[in-house]
Amino acid sequence: MRDLASDLRHCAINTATLGFREPIEVVIDAVARAGFGAIAPWRREIEGHDVKTIARRIREAGLAVTGYCRSTYIPATDRAGFAANIESNRRAIDDAAVLGARSFVLVVGGLPTGSKDISAARAQVVEGTALLLEYGQSRGIRIALEPLHPVYTADRSCVSLLSEALDICDRIEGCTEVPWLGICLDAYHVWWDPNLKHDIARASKRIFGFHVCDWLVPTQDVLNDRGMMGDGIIDLREIRSLVEEAGYDGFVEAEIFSTLDWWKRPMGETLAVCRERFANAT
Amino acid sequence: MRDLASDLRHCAINTATLGFREPIEVVIDAVARAGFGAIAPWRREIEGHDVKTIARRIREAGLAVTGYCRSTYIPATDRAGFAANIESNRRAIDDAAVLGARSFVLVVGGLPTGSKDISAARAQVVEGTALLLEYGQSRGIRIALEPLHPVYTADRSCVSLLSEALDICDRIEGCTEVPWLGICLDAYHVWWDPNLKHDIARASKRIFGFHVCDWLVPTQDVLNDRGMMGDGIIDLREIRSLVEEAGYDGFVEAEIFSTLDWWKRPMGETLAVCRERFANAT
Repeated sequence: MRDLASDLRHCAINTATLGFREPIEVVIDAVARAGFGAIAPWRREIEGHDVKTIARRIREAGLAVTGYCRSTYIPATDRAGFAANIESNRRAIDDAAVLGARSFVLVVGGLPTGSKDISAARAQVVEGTALLLEYGQSRGIRIALEPLHPVYTADRSCVSLLSEALDICDRIEGCTEVPWLGICLDAYHVWWDPNLKHDIARASKRIFGFHVCDWLVPTQDVLNDRGMMGDGIIDLREIRSLVEEAGYDGFVEAEIFSTLDWWKRPMGETLAVCRERFANAT
Repeated sequence: MRDLASDLRHCAINTATLGFREPIEVVIDAVARAGFGAIAPWRREIEGHDVKTIARRIREAGLAVTGYCRSTYIPATDRAGFAANIESNRRAIDDAAVLGARSFVLVVGGLPTGSKDISAARAQVVEGTALLLEYGQSRGIRIALEPLHPVYTADRSCVSLLSEALDICDRIEGCTEVPWLGICLDAYHVWWDPNLKHDIARASKRIFGFHVCDWLVPTQDVLNDRGMMGDGIIDLREIRSLVEEAGYDGFVEAEIFSTLDWWKRPMGETLAVCRERFANAT
């Protein structure tokens, strides 16, 4: 197992951790200055800006780009909506390529408004993911399906289980030595799964990204009350050991949605605590 | 598939639906008067009262008792705590027997305070369930494990998946024609599971209870903002059809925790709407 305390270059900061309060240029410099090895920007920080300039700034700061966050939700009430969602994601994949991202993170979406048909939503996800895999390959960008916690199944991701995401990968891409379709594993979303150990081993080369934060007890808000590593009940070190045993040697990325706490603190403080918690609680 | 519109006697009311605002005697009479076939009382309404008298009142009202709600959480920080939790559940099983309940509902509990070891909590659950199965058999009471939604894994139930609950049943009781250990299936907790169809078929004779309510979008509070059948996104009719195809012919029970809505309404109104939604949305 890698020693994150001795080499912070294995660690990445997802910009969501910092609350989207500063322009991306300021965030890039802060993350680099704090000694991290990579950054994960969000589309809200990139779209409408000069992507090439931002990409150069990230490179010159010495940072890699992990996953580009994130997809437009795929399921729609009609075919025109579906097509528009795919097209939006193709444009985002173009930007991911300019940024040199290691993957494009697919948060697939839940039930279209008015629908109770979860099977139909999942069928749209399979179809859309296949289209985006093809487009991603043409741009040199891997697609990372991120299963979300089942508390989000209705409105954010009808793909909830790691095994479910892996089944989709197998179905679309089949068995392959060098996958272009994989998963982004976020400890917050999967820590509770009784099949986690088995499924992480199964994921193996399909692990394109690894996110950490913590599950607070009690949780005030299931979307925006995620905890700093070490402040909750997830055994992050155990999960990281499983992920690394499965062959993952990419970045360990902090992604902490926290309107109630960390997003209120100065960016430098949040980065300093991340640094310490990567070393001692991840 | 049974026609709930033509026979409300297949339907049950879990007293949690009514917000615990009236004495159990008043609730019993209201549920019976509304035409339902059964009731599920909670320990808070029974313990400290004369259980035999309450049991007689339920019988004389013409109601069956579905599941007696619910267990003391099993996992504890030490062996003395574990033993105390088991003992508390044995006393509740005694009461379930007096009430003539069809099962004792086991909500198993989450991580003991200070622990991050979910495997250890699950091991305590297996051990405790085995003890309670044995005790239940001696009192003629079946034990119904209720897997809860993964949003509660940390603090209410480290058993989240239906498959996980069934694995525990198989492990403890083995294959049997007349199971004493089974599951209570609550649509709210399992609707999102991609393996639901398969796992309900697998559950078969182990389905001891079936709870319904709905998942609201958005959900204001994951504990106490459950929806009336038909007001959310769960395809309840589809799930009921799977449960009945699996052989379940017991009660369909409304259990709606709703501090924000139904618990503020007059009991008679909530019961009338339940009646209509059993018929038209379940």
